[in-house]
Amino acid sequence: MGSAATSPQPSGNLTQDELKRVAAHRALEFVESGMTLGLGTGSTAAHALDRLGDLLRAGALPGVAGVPTSLKTEAHAARVGIPLLPLDAASGASIRLSIDGADEVDPDLNLVKGRGGSLLREKMIEGAGDRFVVIVDESKLVPRLGCTGAVPVEVIPFGAPHTLGLIRKVFDGVPGFHARLRTVPAANGEDSDAPFLTDNGNYIVEMFFEDGIRGDLLDISDRLLRITGVIEHGMFLGMATTVIVANKDGTVTVINKKK
Amino acid sequence: MGSAATSPQPSGNLTQDELKRVAAHRALEFVESGMTLGLGTGSTAAHALDRLGDLLRAGALPGVAGVPTSLKTEAHAARVGIPLLPLDAASGASIRLSIDGADEVDPDLNLVKGRGGSLLREKMIEGAGDRFVVIVDESKLVPRLGCTGAVPVEVIPFGAPHTLGLIRKVFDGVPGFHARLRTVPAANGEDSDAPFLTDNGNYIVEMFFEDGIRGDLLDISDRLLRITGVIEHGMFLGMATTVIVANKDGTVTVINKKK
Repeated sequence: MGSAATSPQPSGNLTQDELKRVAAHRALEFVESGMTLGLGTGSTAAHALDRLGDLLRAGALPGVAGVPTSLKTEAHAARVGIPLLPLDAASGASIRLSIDGADEVDPDLNLVKGRGGSLLREKMIEGAGDRFVVIVDESKLVPRLGCTGAVPVEVIPFGAPHTLGLIRKVFDGVPGFHARLRTVPAANGEDSDAPFLTDNGNYIVEMFFEDGIRGDLLDISDRLLRITGVIEHGMFLGMATTVIVANKDGTVTVINKKK
Repeated sequence: MGSAATSPQPSGNLTQDELKRVAAHRALEFVESGMTLGLGTGSTAAHALDRLGDLLRAGALPGVAGVPTSLKTEAHAARVGIPLLPLDAASGASIRLSIDGADEVDPDLNLVKGRGGSLLREKMIEGAGDRFVVIVDESKLVPRLGCTGAVPVEVIPFGAPHTLGLIRKVFDGVPGFHARLRTVPAANGEDSDAPFLTDNGNYIVEMFFEDGIRGDLLDISDRLLRITGVIEHGMFLGMATTVIVANKDGTVTVINKKK
């Protein structure tokens, strides 16, 4: 765990969505004029986009522009008036700071992200910046990654059933492990056979763990990445520099990565 | 280097294409009835497809079917009457043997492949089988990978200039290294700005080395695969089980991987 500081906030019975907004607004305090920002995807990041739009319209933070991590975020940012830039090493658009939510945060500030389906662009953009500020409500804090739901893996559509078989082999003998290809819900709300497609036209394999991932996460990462059909996975290891946690009681805890 | 055996062959002044055919025909001796084969892509593999088609039409090798490594190979195989199967762990189509050419073969039977642009499917299919027989003329034998031309890397189109920058960082300080995005030739034969697209709709980064890749190839592989936008690279490490070399004098050398 990094160094933590808890600030008092107006207390009360806040909903989970209100907690997400509290964390998102706190993150905006890290933004300075002229910065290029990586803009996250999801319900918590959406609050940061709204807040950034408000600040820009008020004339605060001149020169700020954003690099969106998904098509959805691109549309949202455009709607609230955030100037957008492409991710392009040659353009000189150097990302200073990214702000995004996470599905899980472990005590070493490793994350699970991408349950929303845009892990590849998120990882690319958030890994490109100097700082990465993660905003969560306290329900996202976990003892181990993979405790609360799927860990996604983006895979090439070609040979996806074969790739799924190789992913299962990595966790051979792990009790309670299972993995499946993510599908889109049918019209009746039940599972269909139609694979979910990412912004890049790829598939997602969802990995489930009975009690979280045990073992050396960096080694597990390498073993997944060595599978030919695997593009990326949703474990964001060593990437977060600050995690802002909105607690149930309305206070905010800011955890900085150990140097 | 593995164990090598050289067989006498009808000598003479064979062209490079004739040498490729000699190696390809020798590879077919490894095929047995009922086998599912991984079918390679390129000018040498094309000779193996033609030979396999001839044998099947003659009634030899009943029950043989192929899994093609590219759309081009799929069309060629269909044309010469080779039954085709998809790569699918669930279908039970277990690949026994793959046959393909290579751009380079080093003394440890590591390969550079994919200069033709289909490295991802080749690696997936040829890595799925029990045996992988590589067929080359002797001009493909090199002291180190990357001696004779590009080492390709398949990358996600999104953020490709950024990914190219990260690939360059892996080889920071390596004299003579350079890398570029592969483009398709314009109508006048000169380079255009249009990126080359793989069968999977991705881009190719070409890496060039002054005198081949020095250092721990497995470590370099991991460092490339850890880059978020990188899907796969054209170094096929430890995958070939047999290399069949057609020598200029018409003899054939069969090199088996050390156990």
